[in-house]
Amino acid sequence: MGAPRFKEVRRSYGFDEVAIVPGQVTINPEQADMSLTIGEHRFPIPVLASAMDAVVSPDFAIKMGRLGGLAVLNLEGLWTRYPDAAEKLAEVAETPIEEATTLLQRLYQQPVQDELVAQRVQEIKAGDVPCAVAITPQRAKRLAPVAVEAGADIVVVQSTVTTARHISKSYRGLIFSELVDQIRRPVIVGNCVGYDVALELMENGISGLLVGIGPGAACTSREVVGIGVPQVTATMDCAAAREEYLHRTGRYVSVITDGGIRTGGDFCKSMVAGADGVMLGTPFAQSVEAPGRGYNWGMATPDPALPRGTRIRVGTRGSLEEVLFGPSSRTDGTMNLTGALRACMGMVGAFNVRELQQTDLVYAPDIKMEGKAFQLAGSL
Amino acid sequence: MGAPRFKEVRRSYGFDEVAIVPGQVTINPEQADMSLTIGEHRFPIPVLASAMDAVVSPDFAIKMGRLGGLAVLNLEGLWTRYPDAAEKLAEVAETPIEEATTLLQRLYQQPVQDELVAQRVQEIKAGDVPCAVAITPQRAKRLAPVAVEAGADIVVVQSTVTTARHISKSYRGLIFSELVDQIRRPVIVGNCVGYDVALELMENGISGLLVGIGPGAACTSREVVGIGVPQVTATMDCAAAREEYLHRTGRYVSVITDGGIRTGGDFCKSMVAGADGVMLGTPFAQSVEAPGRGYNWGMATPDPALPRGTRIRVGTRGSLEEVLFGPSSRTDGTMNLTGALRACMGMVGAFNVRELQQTDLVYAPDIKMEGKAFQLAGSL
Amino acid sequence: MGAPRFKEVRRSYGFDEVAIVPGQVTINPEQADMSLTIGEHRFPIPVLASAMDAVVSPDFAIKMGRLGGLAVLNLEGLWTRYPDAAEKLAEVAETPIEEATTLLQRLYQQPVQDELVAQRVQEIKAGDVPCAVAITPQRAKRLAPVAVEAGADIVVVQSTVTTARHISKSYRGLIFSELVDQIRRPVIVGNCVGYDVALELMENGISGLLVGIGPGAACTSREVVGIGVPQVTATMDCAAAREEYLHRTGRYVSVITDGGIRTGGDFCKSMVAGADGVMLGTPFAQSVEAPGRGYNWGMATPDPALPRGTRIRVGTRGSLEEVLFGPSSRTDGTMNLTGALRACMGMVGAFNVRELQQTDLVYAPDIKMEGKAFQLAGSL
Amino acid sequence: MGAPRFKEVRRSYGFDEVAIVPGQVTINPEQADMSLTIGEHRFPIPVLASAMDAVVSPDFAIKMGRLGGLAVLNLEGLWTRYPDAAEKLAEVAETPIEEATTLLQRLYQQPVQDELVAQRVQEIKAGDVPCAVAITPQRAKRLAPVAVEAGADIVVVQSTVTTARHISKSYRGLIFSELVDQIRRPVIVGNCVGYDVALELMENGISGLLVGIGPGAACTSREVVGIGVPQVTATMDCAAAREEYLHRTGRYVSVITDGGIRTGGDFCKSMVAGADGVMLGTPFAQSVEAPGRGYNWGMATPDPALPRGTRIRVGTRGSLEEVLFGPSSRTDGTMNLTGALRACMGMVGAFNVRELQQTDLVYAPDIKMEGKAFQLAGSL
Repeated sequence: MGAPRFKEVRRSYGFDEVAIVPGQVTINPEQADMSLTIGEHRFPIPVLASAMDAVVSPDFAIKMGRLGGLAVLNLEGLWTRYPDAAEKLAEVAETPIEEATTLLQRLYQQPVQDELVAQRVQEIKAGDVPCAVAITPQRAKRLAPVAVEAGADIVVVQSTVTTARHISKSYRGLIFSELVDQIRRPVIVGNCVGYDVALELMENGISGLLVGIGPGAACTSREVVGIGVPQVTATMDCAAAREEYLHRTGRYVSVITDGGIRTGGDFCKSMVAGADGVMLGTPFAQSVEAPGRGYNWGMATPDPALPRGTRIRVGTRGSLEEVLFGPSSRTDGTMNLTGALRACMGMVGAFNVRELQQTDLVYAPDIKMEGKAFQLAGSL
Repeated sequence: MGAPRFKEVRRSYGFDEVAIVPGQVTINPEQADMSLTIGEHRFPIPVLASAMDAVVSPDFAIKMGRLGGLAVLNLEGLWTRYPDAAEKLAEVAETPIEEATTLLQRLYQQPVQDELVAQRVQEIKAGDVPCAVAITPQRAKRLAPVAVEAGADIVVVQSTVTTARHISKSYRGLIFSELVDQIRRPVIVGNCVGYDVALELMENGISGLLVGIGPGAACTSREVVGIGVPQVTATMDCAAAREEYLHRTGRYVSVITDGGIRTGGDFCKSMVAGADGVMLGTPFAQSVEAPGRGYNWGMATPDPALPRGTRIRVGTRGSLEEVLFGPSSRTDGTMNLTGALRACMGMVGAFNVRELQQTDLVYAPDIKMEGKAFQLAGSL
Repeated sequence: MGAPRFKEVRRSYGFDEVAIVPGQVTINPEQADMSLTIGEHRFPIPVLASAMDAVVSPDFAIKMGRLGGLAVLNLEGLWTRYPDAAEKLAEVAETPIEEATTLLQRLYQQPVQDELVAQRVQEIKAGDVPCAVAITPQRAKRLAPVAVEAGADIVVVQSTVTTARHISKSYRGLIFSELVDQIRRPVIVGNCVGYDVALELMENGISGLLVGIGPGAACTSREVVGIGVPQVTATMDCAAAREEYLHRTGRYVSVITDGGIRTGGDFCKSMVAGADGVMLGTPFAQSVEAPGRGYNWGMATPDPALPRGTRIRVGTRGSLEEVLFGPSSRTDGTMNLTGALRACMGMVGAFNVRELQQTDLVYAPDIKMEGKAFQLAGSL
Repeated sequence: MGAPRFKEVRRSYGFDEVAIVPGQVTINPEQADMSLTIGEHRFPIPVLASAMDAVVSPDFAIKMGRLGGLAVLNLEGLWTRYPDAAEKLAEVAETPIEEATTLLQRLYQQPVQDELVAQRVQEIKAGDVPCAVAITPQRAKRLAPVAVEAGADIVVVQSTVTTARHISKSYRGLIFSELVDQIRRPVIVGNCVGYDVALELMENGISGLLVGIGPGAACTSREVVGIGVPQVTATMDCAAAREEYLHRTGRYVSVITDGGIRTGGDFCKSMVAGADGVMLGTPFAQSVEAPGRGYNWGMATPDPALPRGTRIRVGTRGSLEEVLFGPSSRTDGTMNLTGALRACMGMVGAFNVRELQQTDLVYAPDIKMEGKAFQLAGSL
């Protein structure tokens, strides 16, 4: 028992293991301000749509912007590989499941075209909303200037696991501080977990951080390569880095929880864990406006050697507006996400996100009971 | 590993995670006194029926009072909106599930009528039992005097999350100490969790506290807004506040666990966790006397923007007397609730509730085994 | 977070949560001595059969004794209420499930007859094996002398929850030290949990202790009255009391884990947790020799007010000899229980039970994996 | 609560309870070196195939060797009992499940023939790859020289639970240091768990250690005899012993996790927990080259008295090359195991196994959520 230990195994927490503890005051939900700031941009609702082909089209981005959130267009997906991307998406939706991975593998072999990058940005800007685009670190130097030139307002540099330093013998890794200096636009970087990585990325001058690597036990990254950190812990660690960086420099970098959020409850827990906003995929893929037509898949799905994830049937539940603001007859927390956050802020007495982040969490794992889903609710 | 933490996540416990540890003596169950005191009222059995339309009617309240418990009538439900509330309840029971939420939304738009408030109170008082009524904080100033004037003995002020201070720009929040002074009747307030909130509410002069916010993982509050504290921990925290307040002032405020109690085991665990009594909904909705006719729903169900919970078929299991006192052929702990508590008090050697509250609990989570449901039981 | 706590909730462990850690040597299993001592009686195999009507008949007790274990006859069951108990048992087995509880309630209303008590003891003694009988504390003063007079060697005083002190206004509780002095036979007492209770019972001069109250989460005691302690923790606590008592007095009291043991693995874990033997019900009810004919039930089943447990179909798996010693084609650990213990003692290098009790346990909860049920096993 | 404790129960971890935490840098996966060294032999991929009859035939061993791994032939299985072993394996595959255990019991009663031992070794050596063979401690003195004489390069001495000291009255246990001196070939010993046992085995001069005893809760050893340690903890403990031994002597003994590995994720976690390599059974039994023809069983299955495990249908998923290197259309982590490890090393920034072993793990248990299996993956 007293033998040396090889390493410590730290406790981490996921959404299903924690719950929010109400505070000492309650407020009127209408008075809660949930806005998110990225660089000079202020978004009334702290919600981003994931840079996935089945989630964000130029049209979707415009609608999302008008509703107060931010949709990120994937600059390395079908929209920048095909002029008629909508047709390709229809083809994916109509293909039987057993051929879907093969089709995706073939479609994603077509190269990304710079003209289409510029065209898609312009399509979004024509809607008079902020335009955000996502690129991988490898293509950032090439595509970021094209997108910015075309009018992109925010650049998201995203890969499964991102750190401030990528070491390669064959090429020089992307230096984020150089990218920030070059494009003079707010840069959001992800995905990452961990206090040290988050702090180092912030020191590169970025404006936002996407938090989340393999957050769920059933997640592909967990299953295939064993990597992952549950989202509550991942968010708390990055929030701790934000506070430290804020204390040192006076500059505030927004922390955005990305991955595994299915319900209003998960959304609220992310914010209490320290996030300034969240990025969602599946809930938006389920909207009628989503280009995936009731399907969704990840960028790792077409990988020919180590495919992760498959095309998944997610169905369609309602309009984007209903997902964000209701009303809805669904009672499982998947609709009216901002209404849920507003109600939560009322119950914990938080006038804004900074106050919400001060709320307590308890560890309250999988208690399977019918519960009393019956409470008198009228005061808030 | 040594990085700063954003916040601590405290361990909490639900009913399914703990078990009661017998003590060093056993007693004859017949000698156990389980009575509950609210202000000057003493109830032989420490059981309240929830202020839900499908659970408590005036007739139900009379029967409950005669059996030694206390049923709370919801003053903002169908009974005070419609002279023919029983017919409306029948309509709800007969409506197909897909139309139930819509019907409930429509029914609850009818305003609460002061005359009906007075009439329902008088109906209960005609049965010669204590009359308890529930109102929300927003309507407390208007309805509480009406109910007290008509003869109400105990006023329950209840909302999903209640604190001693509600902050609003548009109106002045209810001050509980003012209400206590005004109506000169025992006031029970809830629902709350947390030592500090409980202590502050007690300092307002209330006589009882309802404990429980989103207690179960499957609970609507947990799913939709992420808020909730498992009931064992919630009860223990409020009991700690009661002890502190008792120590400071000499006044004893009863702590009532409200929510998530399904079986005699949950009932017993609530009391060992520090409760003086429990409030139950579903077990009473399943009685033949319940006005819901085998259905139940919560006050948040008709919310048009963020509905939580639905009309649930709970079925009918036996008479109210059988639920409380048996006999029964059911062996799953859902009948003869007071018999269960009495047996428990015998096994742990507790002559009264104060002694029962001193009993130990162990953390003993979901061990799925056939178990040995076979023990010689004769000594108690 | 820093608020006062009402009580601490101690961690406890059940069979499914722990695993045995092999030690630094291995031995030949054939060299392992697993014998159990109760007073002057030494049993080659540390296994008792539960005092249940469906498990132990006089014939069963004789067979068990000849195989090296000890079966305990229930002196307050059908065998001492009816001369033709076997016929009553056949009637129970043939009754449809919906009428079974009612039939049991009726059958157990017949009074216990002293002549049948003596007769059953003599039937067992005629088989030339040690005779053990079980009685409740209430009837101990009346029935124990009758049984001892007829030749009983060991008296088991058993109830659901037993302590050294039972307090009643209407009668004087049983004093175990007086019973021990009176009958001059080894007395086994149970069921209990907890260090203090175990120590106090040992100080009354008893020879054995039955450990186990509501061990499983699905157990009736847990469900109905919330009481229970998982068996690994319960056994460890009583073993700690045994060590303390041994240290103080030099007298060794055997600790017997009773309840929840289904497999060889559970048996082995009980012993490593500190038991000197185990008491089993269901595995023996499943033997062809069991009088229950493939059924089992507990003494709390017929309780008219608070019935706990029901008649359960357990089936028949093999002869008593096969359950204890194999051979068997079943590979789930339910057969050849002593072979399992012997193999375990070989793998952990324990020559006897005292050494086995020194082996380490790890907390290794419900990992659901296919596992590698394939290991080269030949060395032991 | 303050009562003495009989023993402490230490926390242990299995694959499904932990996840790998990415580090502060990422690297190009192509630059990662995952090689394993056993004595003077260096294997490009750190993967061994289990010494099971249904997994490794001489042909399988040759193919595995050419792909860069090491397959271990069981010298006490059907291959050395029957000249026509392939026919016996076909017979097993064609037998109905209810007769399978009986057939296996009969087949394994035929004695092991020294000539066949030599012949099988020569068959493997004819393929011009390193030859590894497995024997039990009881037969090591007799069979190891025969195998080495025939050309075996590595000797694996394996039993369910192995320690440095086996105590028997009837024979002198195997002294590993003597075997090492005698055969002058690298010796791998297992299976073991625990720091002390691992250290003592290393002090006997062995070159490799197989880690894993009853790793899964559903494992036969756990079910039947209660013994087992989850693999992450078992591997960490043996890795700690390796470091201590390396520090003392400068000699490096490879630690190989054996048992319970189903996916690339489990493989990666084993290495991060401190392993230098892994041994797999079922994933290889599922290859088209496996002699078991879609079935698998363990050496304890034919035990006549205490059979553990049964013949299991595992199916066939692809070629050995596809299992190890892909490509594959399966996305559940069961194919392209080395691709998974390579991707993992890229994400955590490990250029070699020693660096990989420094990576952090978090405790992240069974969070059942759909998760976001959708991540932009392109940077690695």
